[in-house]
Amino acid sequence: MTFIHNQQKHILSDFISGQLLAYPHLKKHETLPLVYNRHHDSSKIPILSGGGSGHEPAHIGYVGEGMLTGAIYGTLFYPPTVDEIAVSIRFLDKGKGVFVIVKNFDADLAHFRKAIATVRAEGYNVKYILSYDDISIEPKKHFKIRGRGLAGTILLHKILGALAQRGASLDELEQVGFELSTQIATIGFATKSATLPRATLPLFELEENSIYYGIGIHGEEGYRTVPFTSSEELANEIVNKLKLHFHWEKGEPFILLVNNLGTTTDLEMGIFLNDLKQLFDIQGLSLPLIKSGRFMTSLDMAGISVTLCKMTDKQWLDYLLVPTDAYAW
Amino acid sequence: MTFIHNQQKHILSDFISGQLLAYPHLKKHETLPLVYNRHHDSSKIPILSGGGSGHEPAHIGYVGEGMLTGAIYGTLFYPPTVDEIAVSIRFLDKGKGVFVIVKNFDADLAHFRKAIATVRAEGYNVKYILSYDDISIEPKKHFKIRGRGLAGTILLHKILGALAQRGASLDELEQVGFELSTQIATIGFATKSATLPRATLPLFELEENSIYYGIGIHGEEGYRTVPFTSSEELANEIVNKLKLHFHWEKGEPFILLVNNLGTTTDLEMGIFLNDLKQLFDIQGLSLPLIKSGRFMTSLDMAGISVTLCKMTDKQWLDYLLVPTDAYAW
Repeated sequence: MTFIHNQQKHILSDFISGQLLAYPHLKKHETLPLVYNRHHDSSKIPILSGGGSGHEPAHIGYVGEGMLTGAIYGTLFYPPTVDEIAVSIRFLDKGKGVFVIVKNFDADLAHFRKAIATVRAEGYNVKYILSYDDISIEPKKHFKIRGRGLAGTILLHKILGALAQRGASLDELEQVGFELSTQIATIGFATKSATLPRATLPLFELEENSIYYGIGIHGEEGYRTVPFTSSEELANEIVNKLKLHFHWEKGEPFILLVNNLGTTTDLEMGIFLNDLKQLFDIQGLSLPLIKSGRFMTSLDMAGISVTLCKMTDKQWLDYLLVPTDAYAW
Repeated sequence: MTFIHNQQKHILSDFISGQLLAYPHLKKHETLPLVYNRHHDSSKIPILSGGGSGHEPAHIGYVGEGMLTGAIYGTLFYPPTVDEIAVSIRFLDKGKGVFVIVKNFDADLAHFRKAIATVRAEGYNVKYILSYDDISIEPKKHFKIRGRGLAGTILLHKILGALAQRGASLDELEQVGFELSTQIATIGFATKSATLPRATLPLFELEENSIYYGIGIHGEEGYRTVPFTSSEELANEIVNKLKLHFHWEKGEPFILLVNNLGTTTDLEMGIFLNDLKQLFDIQGLSLPLIKSGRFMTSLDMAGISVTLCKMTDKQWLDYLLVPTDAYAW
């Protein structure tokens, strides 16, 4: 695989410089690995999210009016440092406090928690929630649910972002975030592994014409490898896993987000969504909003993840429909 | 390569069914391979474009308010039939005539011209323009400029679409289209060939870590293969080719559109755009609008094309900035 770049150590800074040219509402902090919305209204609570790089358009694609105020990025697949997060929070706080959305990975959680503890000790008013939508399991660890933060995190960004824009308090954001994060589930599969820039081997091995269910977004292994047969079979496996998680009843409303994990073609995305929808129809689910696109990727991995959010609060739909200039929503 | 699908003969219909679920403003014609904007205001001239499939999000991603009224699609890499085009024009004409944007490929041109001649003979008022932004050359045909319709076509869709929405006549659309199409130039490169669904071999051979300049969007050969060295070198070659075409002067304003030809990562897109911009800055170009994204692809090909549009009319920028619900703009 040819990875278009110049000096390896400048991959991320060159990328950010390029994106700023295409999206003028974004601004890079002078020294921090932080991109923020230059038009943010300082009377509203700022929302910060982020994590390792390599998942583009996450997270800078979600910075904009009514979504994230800032996105902080680490190196490829590794979160920003405690210090970078702490300085970012201090920078974003214009007197209203800061709300932080953290993806549930060990290193992310450790860094964000420590940074939040540090600034709280200085008197900063910071609340945060964890995103843990991943319902895939660890085959080698007694089928423990992984609960990592995957593409479902984007729904938290959008709904809490719209809520903050309408003037919600830190407590309200935390309350809605808690409820929302329990209602989101994501599961996916890969048709091709990602390869790190300049690496000669992919992150995991997958035979030609094979499917790997339940993979992570950093090359983590899945729970089963099968030969590819049809899009319908893929949809069936995914819908079954989601059904076991939600135990839904006929007519229950869900938001559906179908996420291209990197290099799957639009043709495949449409074909797979069509199969998913037919199976959800048979189950009697109501899907008032369907989003399909590239939301959270893993470099050049090919594959699709499916996120459902059970709409225990009907207002969430309104928040999802509020316009934003975040470029990846 | 695993291509997610069910029956091969249903690849396109399944894809369209899926996209309609995600984009409710789109409607499929009952029998024709035509997707149209269900909210189109019939007091405005409808705009039709289209061509072979395999270039998604082109063209259905450009159907929406202030952009295309309808997109007609053929099979993979092959245009719709004369009859399908003719019936689509009759269907879209609500008494104001129809404006058609055709990509300059032999088969496309033949089918669209014949269909337009047919409906004109029946009394339909149809005007069309050709998009021929490709400035790559045929190495085996005395370096003839290919002049095919590439990603620059999207600028025609957007500007003429916005103009039609403001009530432009067929003559005005034709006049602006003629002027605009002469001012757009596109050139690109691939880092990986596309592979047709279920094919075992890619459309062209390209060694590991190689670049192919001037490739087409249907696997057509390029003009030179070189080993990859740096993003900067790629940008330099592309800027030189565009400079030879435009013979620009310092301060001249251009619109820049950087197009992901399929499976290039966002990281690479940003890195390459950053290099391009630095070289354009050295040239003294003014770039009041920079668009970066996946606009016209070639299945799973990896690569980037660069389109410049010389702004001989300053109003074009306003038209490009008019909001649209076309999902790929």
